[in-house]
Amino acid sequence: MQFTHDTTSDDVRERLFTLDDVAGALWTPVGPAGPRPLILFGHGGGQHKQAPSVVARARRCVAAGFSAVAIDAPGHGDRPKTERDQQAIAAIRRRRAAGEPVLELIVSYNAALAAEAIPEWQATLDALQKLDEIGPAAPVGYWGVSMGTTIGVPLAAAEPRIAAAVLGLMGGDALAEPAALVTVPVQFLVQWDDELVARETALALFDALGSAEKTLHANPGGHADIPAFEHESALAFLARHLDDQFQGMPTEGVGWAAAEATARR
Amino acid sequence: MQFTHDTTSDDVRERLFTLDDVAGALWTPVGPAGPRPLILFGHGGGQHKQAPSVVARARRCVAAGFSAVAIDAPGHGDRPKTERDQQAIAAIRRRRAAGEPVLELIVSYNAALAAEAIPEWQATLDALQKLDEIGPAAPVGYWGVSMGTTIGVPLAAAEPRIAAAVLGLMGGDALAEPAALVTVPVQFLVQWDDELVARETALALFDALGSAEKTLHANPGGHADIPAFEHESALAFLARHLDDQFQGMPTEGVGWAAAEATARR
Repeated sequence: MQFTHDTTSDDVRERLFTLDDVAGALWTPVGPAGPRPLILFGHGGGQHKQAPSVVARARRCVAAGFSAVAIDAPGHGDRPKTERDQQAIAAIRRRRAAGEPVLELIVSYNAALAAEAIPEWQATLDALQKLDEIGPAAPVGYWGVSMGTTIGVPLAAAEPRIAAAVLGLMGGDALAEPAALVTVPVQFLVQWDDELVARETALALFDALGSAEKTLHANPGGHADIPAFEHESALAFLARHLDDQFQGMPTEGVGWAAAEATARR
Repeated sequence: MQFTHDTTSDDVRERLFTLDDVAGALWTPVGPAGPRPLILFGHGGGQHKQAPSVVARARRCVAAGFSAVAIDAPGHGDRPKTERDQQAIAAIRRRRAAGEPVLELIVSYNAALAAEAIPEWQATLDALQKLDEIGPAAPVGYWGVSMGTTIGVPLAAAEPRIAAAVLGLMGGDALAEPAALVTVPVQFLVQWDDELVARETALALFDALGSAEKTLHANPGGHADIPAFEHESALAFLARHLDDQFQGMPTEGVGWAAAEATARR
């Protein structure tokens, strides 16, 4: 893992890194804070590790007592687009322009990306756990909707270090099988008027999740219209589950999670 | 409004009252606390104003910075059962015992109760607003699922003092028309495996709500299996919306709501 940039603002340190073919960004508190839960951010299709929505949520996570990391998905951000990527993107654009359904095309393309992204996420997690400020025992959560869910569902099914996941804005039959293998608590977001993912297919993916504890949050509006309060709710969900794992770890720096836990009592 | 009992435990004062035919319970903090938001609790079918689940949530509300009130629905609790009530209850029991769908029967019976309960709630609110510890300006929220929603939907449609509502565990075509007239923010609970309310009919009632801001929370399990974290989420939802109205009012005693608001920033 090579760090290539290191900047700090508003008490959040942001470092860019490369790890073989992967390009990522890591957000941690300034100064020594000790181990704390780590949130993996999976960005949406066409976005990247430093998309404004990713950076905003990652920085909020740090303020709330977590560390956060995002990596570019294959063909996204700093990573080269292959012939496959270019063809898939062009096909999706043509269909959208023609007003035709694109979900199955997106799911199929993203499944190919997920097959590469899962070992990349696992290698990233291996490397991060060797850093003093992350450590091998930090509870790990995943947060990614839309394409972040087409990668996140098989990742959560395959990677036992992930203890809780925020997913959503996705559906499609191809995800039902890996979804059934997910057993960790999931908070699943649905946009009630999603123009890309029909309501029924999103509800079916929630239904397919194997998790004993799963909770669905649906709100009016289109694919990009998740209300801000759901970001706070997602943080509270992750804090609730990762705090359980966090017992016995140093509590320095987990101010928000601790405040939430107190408010819940 | 006549107070008939007055007890205090764990810093919560519980007073029973009657108001014409209505029997109710009011929960407030001990000592002078100044005006604070008021939550109206609508109990479930077969329950009453002091059902354990109502009392637990009401006392939690007081600890969180609200006042709380519940009244017996017609034919429930301390109120006499009419011939109509007895016939409806017997018919619902027969159908449940035979494994037949009961939702439309429940909705139809509850609609008759709601027609009486709405003016009763309004008279209760009139009387409470004359008490020093409630006052005329306290923001008002409503919280009632199942039968509490068959009454709460037309009540929220008719009563402009209600500024936000927690509803759910209900469906049925007969509620679609009043639901369309509800305009305040709603948090709507669905139990994914509800044995009384089919998933589709609950989703349809959420869909029918006229509110620009409405949010659906669905969880696995049966009609009675709402997870405890949804009670805390409902409190946070009510705090978020009633706090907005609470600006300029004395803030003494709204510790939990204020802490939540701080955590959200």
